[in-house]
Amino acid sequence: MMTRFSVTYWVGANDEAEARQRALDIALEQTVEIPRDAVPAGYVEDEILGKLERLEPASDGRGGFFADISYSEDDVGGDFLQLLNIIFGNSSIKTNIRVEDITLSPGILSLCAGPRFGMPGLRELCGVDKGPLLMSAIKPVGLSSKELGKLAHDFALGGMDFVKDDHGLADQHTSPFAERLKACVDGVNEANAKTGGKATYVPNITAPAMKLFERAWMAKEQGAGGVMIAPALAGYDVIHSLAADPDFGLPIVSHPTFAGPNMITPTTGFSHRFYFGLLQRLMGVDAVVYPNFGGRFGFTLAECQSIVRGCQAEFGGYKPIVPAPGGGMSLARVPEMRDAYGDRVMYLIGGALIRERDNLADASRRLVDAVRAED
Amino acid sequence: MMTRFSVTYWVGANDEAEARQRALDIALEQTVEIPRDAVPAGYVEDEILGKLERLEPASDGRGGFFADISYSEDDVGGDFLQLLNIIFGNSSIKTNIRVEDITLSPGILSLCAGPRFGMPGLRELCGVDKGPLLMSAIKPVGLSSKELGKLAHDFALGGMDFVKDDHGLADQHTSPFAERLKACVDGVNEANAKTGGKATYVPNITAPAMKLFERAWMAKEQGAGGVMIAPALAGYDVIHSLAADPDFGLPIVSHPTFAGPNMITPTTGFSHRFYFGLLQRLMGVDAVVYPNFGGRFGFTLAECQSIVRGCQAEFGGYKPIVPAPGGGMSLARVPEMRDAYGDRVMYLIGGALIRERDNLADASRRLVDAVRAED
Repeated sequence: MMTRFSVTYWVGANDEAEARQRALDIALEQTVEIPRDAVPAGYVEDEILGKLERLEPASDGRGGFFADISYSEDDVGGDFLQLLNIIFGNSSIKTNIRVEDITLSPGILSLCAGPRFGMPGLRELCGVDKGPLLMSAIKPVGLSSKELGKLAHDFALGGMDFVKDDHGLADQHTSPFAERLKACVDGVNEANAKTGGKATYVPNITAPAMKLFERAWMAKEQGAGGVMIAPALAGYDVIHSLAADPDFGLPIVSHPTFAGPNMITPTTGFSHRFYFGLLQRLMGVDAVVYPNFGGRFGFTLAECQSIVRGCQAEFGGYKPIVPAPGGGMSLARVPEMRDAYGDRVMYLIGGALIRERDNLADASRRLVDAVRAED
Repeated sequence: MMTRFSVTYWVGANDEAEARQRALDIALEQTVEIPRDAVPAGYVEDEILGKLERLEPASDGRGGFFADISYSEDDVGGDFLQLLNIIFGNSSIKTNIRVEDITLSPGILSLCAGPRFGMPGLRELCGVDKGPLLMSAIKPVGLSSKELGKLAHDFALGGMDFVKDDHGLADQHTSPFAERLKACVDGVNEANAKTGGKATYVPNITAPAMKLFERAWMAKEQGAGGVMIAPALAGYDVIHSLAADPDFGLPIVSHPTFAGPNMITPTTGFSHRFYFGLLQRLMGVDAVVYPNFGGRFGFTLAECQSIVRGCQAEFGGYKPIVPAPGGGMSLARVPEMRDAYGDRVMYLIGGALIRERDNLADASRRLVDAVRAED
């Protein structure tokens, strides 16, 4: 039974000797964090200290090296945050190091139960067995719960599979959480009754630390079909804990707000594939929102396609999850997005439809038809 | 009564027209997140939409512009995570934007009670009314609770003011949290009884979401004198909630693990001063660990001095807090650090002393004396 897992880092360096030294520094920094000559012999040195398992020039033409470092499951101690701490704790503060990949071990697989629904579960939930899925967002902050509930109703009436809160909707006095939850669940149910559809409302439960779980359970009790959480704000164990709870059992959507610095430079943080793919599956996310190429954010087509691979390629036996590209999506971009993504994603469209709020159901229907007609 | 607060962003741009457009994009992105022409007239446009209040060429020679954007307290809705979401949510995913400063409003001051102890409170707690404070860290992971308790004892015996867990100490089988807590509280108390000193043990309570608060209260009940939390892992509201709870009332130490990408590039994320200073005070942190200049991390002396200013310059009437530079500190560096920081910081020394674990109390005493002798 393998009791070590390993992380692949990209390490910037002028030559192999420098890369080796930097990789050995990572192995030390991420585990014992004391000078090499002070590491106690025996268990600490043999088991806990990170081990450099492989060092090779980066094969993808960007220069630098790939270093595989293995770590002990004992160091994780059954704590998901400590797993992240080992993967990229203090070393996250260094430049010219980037987390690229992870190879799992039985203990990590047991700690991370993974997505409960993933792509197959979400398809079943909304009764769409092929073609892309569609999600829209109710907004802006400042509208009343009644107005937001009407938007949710109209999106559902127009054929959206999922209707989520904007990530800025919290508990503002214009639309307190409990009131909005009821208005939107009612709105979506009413639309479903008219269409015979299965649209799902997904409230944002990112909240103060002692209220988040309360809102998660309130969402479930009141009939929401999923919840959305921003892990970079709320912490990385919240989704992990909710996904692992069989009594909770709702799909979880992950939002990227506040997470930007983790992946936007090519030589620091995480690769797009790791952050929006592998990490989300380890957390137990079912669908992950990320900025689409060609929109307001700077992600390239290649980066976005790497995210899809991170979400769906074989990884520890976890279910494939649903990448949800958003940010500047419109009817006009449907052909381009179909070319890039095929049926593997959930189109997230918010702002462009809100512009047509007086005919929202019709505008939504046109978009849904355009997306599905390409099949 | 002012009901808007404002955030200063550095915006990279070739000319003022481009900077203005980018700033207006931030104002939209961070509030309504819909196209400008779709923003509902009235309350949403007048109150919720971010307003560009000032745009000027950056005065510090780096090029680009400073943009002040004001936001409504109504948008925050009494939620600290939503405050961070407004300050730098989706815009964190863009490059060439950086958060530099914040001007508070009464509602934000009321939401953020700030540090309970700060520098004056920590000085009182450890009975050191002038000169720098000192903190050490017990490590590495893999030692038993008995061994770690012995290290805590020896550090306290050697005159350290604070003895904290390494941030990698969680609940591993080699030293389960509750067992380590008892061993270290006992160790430090025993040393205090010998020296007549007031050393304080600070356990790491970064933990799974549903266990963190449990560990915080266990730490208090068992006699720990403070707690340490890594907000970039555990979420940014955890410290905010604990600091605001008058029944808890222990000092809080903030650790930078996993936070690196938020401040390590000059044109993305946050300025060092904002992230390690202002943000920590808004959260309610009493002492903040950050990587020292000239050590294993790449922070410059100027960046470190800006952190000290962010921790201690007037800001909303909040108490000054204690910057704790660590990472490569040693006896040899004491004069250089005294030159850089004077009495305004808490020296964090871990690894270099662990090397002398067989004579740890003596080695600690030499360091404490060297630091205090400079007065």
